[in-house]
Amino acid sequence: MIVRKVSILGSTGSVGTSTLDLMDQAEKAGSGAFEVEVLTGGANIARLVEQARRWKPRLAVTADPARLAELRDGLAGTGVEAAAGADAVVEAARRPVDWVMASIVGAAGLRSAWAAAGTGATLALANKESLVCCGPTLIERVKRSGGRLIPVDSEHSAIFQVFPAEAPERVSKLILTASGGPFRALPRTAMERITPEQAVAHPNWSMGAKISVDSATMANKGLELIEAAYLFGMGEDRVDVVVHPESIIHSLVEYVDGSTLAQMGPPDMKTPIACALAWPERMRWPAPRLDLAALGRLTFEAPDQMRFPALKLAREALAAGGDAPIVFNAANEVAALAFLDRRLGFLNIAAVVADTLERATKAGMGSGSGDACDAALAVDAAARRIADEIIASRAIAA
Amino acid sequence: MIVRKVSILGSTGSVGTSTLDLMDQAEKAGSGAFEVEVLTGGANIARLVEQARRWKPRLAVTADPARLAELRDGLAGTGVEAAAGADAVVEAARRPVDWVMASIVGAAGLRSAWAAAGTGATLALANKESLVCCGPTLIERVKRSGGRLIPVDSEHSAIFQVFPAEAPERVSKLILTASGGPFRALPRTAMERITPEQAVAHPNWSMGAKISVDSATMANKGLELIEAAYLFGMGEDRVDVVVHPESIIHSLVEYVDGSTLAQMGPPDMKTPIACALAWPERMRWPAPRLDLAALGRLTFEAPDQMRFPALKLAREALAAGGDAPIVFNAANEVAALAFLDRRLGFLNIAAVVADTLERATKAGMGSGSGDACDAALAVDAAARRIADEIIASRAIAA
Repeated sequence: MIVRKVSILGSTGSVGTSTLDLMDQAEKAGSGAFEVEVLTGGANIARLVEQARRWKPRLAVTADPARLAELRDGLAGTGVEAAAGADAVVEAARRPVDWVMASIVGAAGLRSAWAAAGTGATLALANKESLVCCGPTLIERVKRSGGRLIPVDSEHSAIFQVFPAEAPERVSKLILTASGGPFRALPRTAMERITPEQAVAHPNWSMGAKISVDSATMANKGLELIEAAYLFGMGEDRVDVVVHPESIIHSLVEYVDGSTLAQMGPPDMKTPIACALAWPERMRWPAPRLDLAALGRLTFEAPDQMRFPALKLAREALAAGGDAPIVFNAANEVAALAFLDRRLGFLNIAAVVADTLERATKAGMGSGSGDACDAALAVDAAARRIADEIIASRAIAA
Repeated sequence: MIVRKVSILGSTGSVGTSTLDLMDQAEKAGSGAFEVEVLTGGANIARLVEQARRWKPRLAVTADPARLAELRDGLAGTGVEAAAGADAVVEAARRPVDWVMASIVGAAGLRSAWAAAGTGATLALANKESLVCCGPTLIERVKRSGGRLIPVDSEHSAIFQVFPAEAPERVSKLILTASGGPFRALPRTAMERITPEQAVAHPNWSMGAKISVDSATMANKGLELIEAAYLFGMGEDRVDVVVHPESIIHSLVEYVDGSTLAQMGPPDMKTPIACALAWPERMRWPAPRLDLAALGRLTFEAPDQMRFPALKLAREALAAGGDAPIVFNAANEVAALAFLDRRLGFLNIAAVVADTLERATKAGMGSGSGDACDAALAVDAAARRIADEIIASRAIAA
């Protein structure tokens, strides 16, 4: 029986919605009982209201201050308190609960994840930026508060499930699997002409546009490499990447004695969410099941760092340490959005990231004032400005 | 640092030799320190003497009473005590140590494994018959003595490494992988003419002749299915078999939440032995490492129970319970040896097993007198007699 008092930060997005679906299934199956403290959403007030009417949280928050009245109207008669604005989201994340899903996308999710990390709750982390920008300090913060961090990304969830947290010295390396994205087999010459429409069509996972571009450039895997290194305390040289187009083996852990443990299953974001929700228990839900005989084969190849330079850049940023991973992430986001906006060619996304990393290193941005989260956000903002300037000054556009 | 007082039952066979090799590597690497209480071997006195001179056990035993003088001569001046005979092997297995490798092959290994299971030691179990013939009582015996059972077979070691022993209710099923043997793709009509020479040529593992025949008929997988069911407390309907010719994924555990965990690696019997030797630690040794990109692909197919009826017979024996698994094992061994001896055609191996199971069920052999081990051995002997009669009376020979 899974009994939890929970908050869902970013409840109206795909991860938040899936989390609530799983909670609903567990309650209906009699294997879960949830009390919801906080739900937060963005502009989709209709969905937030619907969720709040079903789950009766103490507090529902929209990040958009202009939507407060709309949210209040929707919640009329429910007794659910309403609030709005970025600060209200962070305040809500500070409320004490057993379990928090931090699934607000992008840099906006960092502040609330950071707030939740200080409460002692189990922190189910779907927000990539929190780890990439503040990994070591965030992990330390969770530990000091008596909480636990559970990654929700399928790759890191896979590693989490077979990693000996109590004895990390038993591990020789992590092996992240990568689908390779839609252009895995495309020659480099053809990659120059890739359009945003082609880039957002991912073979195995249905995702947002920016994340799809990251998958197409493999910047996504670069970010995951940084996250994995932080989450499991491994150096850059102890995280391998292997391309596995079927996305069935979600990642692997090689032990010092030559045994390699892996987590597998059909690609489905609910599986890692269910794992995080029930951990250390396991919840029954109508999950898609692995059928190896029906699949017939799984294939693997080494990633091509010539055609996918983002992976190499991420390794360099991780090895450089300091703020470099924050710069990598910020520059990549700016460049990916410029590509989607047809202001930048596909192959120039990595070029912009490389230039930004170089310029930021020279500038020596330092870590500013405030806590680690403030400092990271300052570096993030500075890196975005540099990346924007680089894009604006480039002769070549899409 | 792995510090153990150990006994190796069957030290001159391939598992025993590999165990001593790993201990040697651990000592040389400074990561292990072993005190050897007992080494036992069979007719290969030269190897037993060589091992005893290296490891200085308190006692060295040959199962062959006629070789005692030869063993004594070999050990002259070492201070190592010598003994001989089947009873001496069992006596030696009773000596208190931290860790015992039970790797005496066949029914002969049952008595000594049973003896070691009562001492409270960690029992690394390579002898299949112990589990197939006495599984539930042997497991109970280890538990009651305060010991721990660690399987050394690659499939069961894989499951052991990803199975939640503290909460088996989190598991929905086990998935055993099978290489499919050398005749995986052979049409049934051609299987009639399979020769012993063809059957002993295994694609992935180098093994003894009888075990190779078991791999070719998939009786081996049938025995492992029975062992897995006993070891992990699963019903016959919760152990699947999938054919995986590359033998890289050694087996899998599907959890109730849809996550499937697996242990992988190049086929090498030392990997599961190293796991058992160091458990719960992990030992560094120059293990072959998994390289998925170099492998390129892993393939899977459903087992064909029409061409490999042994698998179906094993399931039926397990489902029938009682002595049926003992009869399955005994009849299979007699039939496999008759095939190697050219007294039986390849497809008739399973036919003999099926007939023996049927006749033994009618005879209702019961469980005789003595402890569970004695009773199992009595059933084993009776089943062998029945199988012999069936083979002698068959018109069709090879």
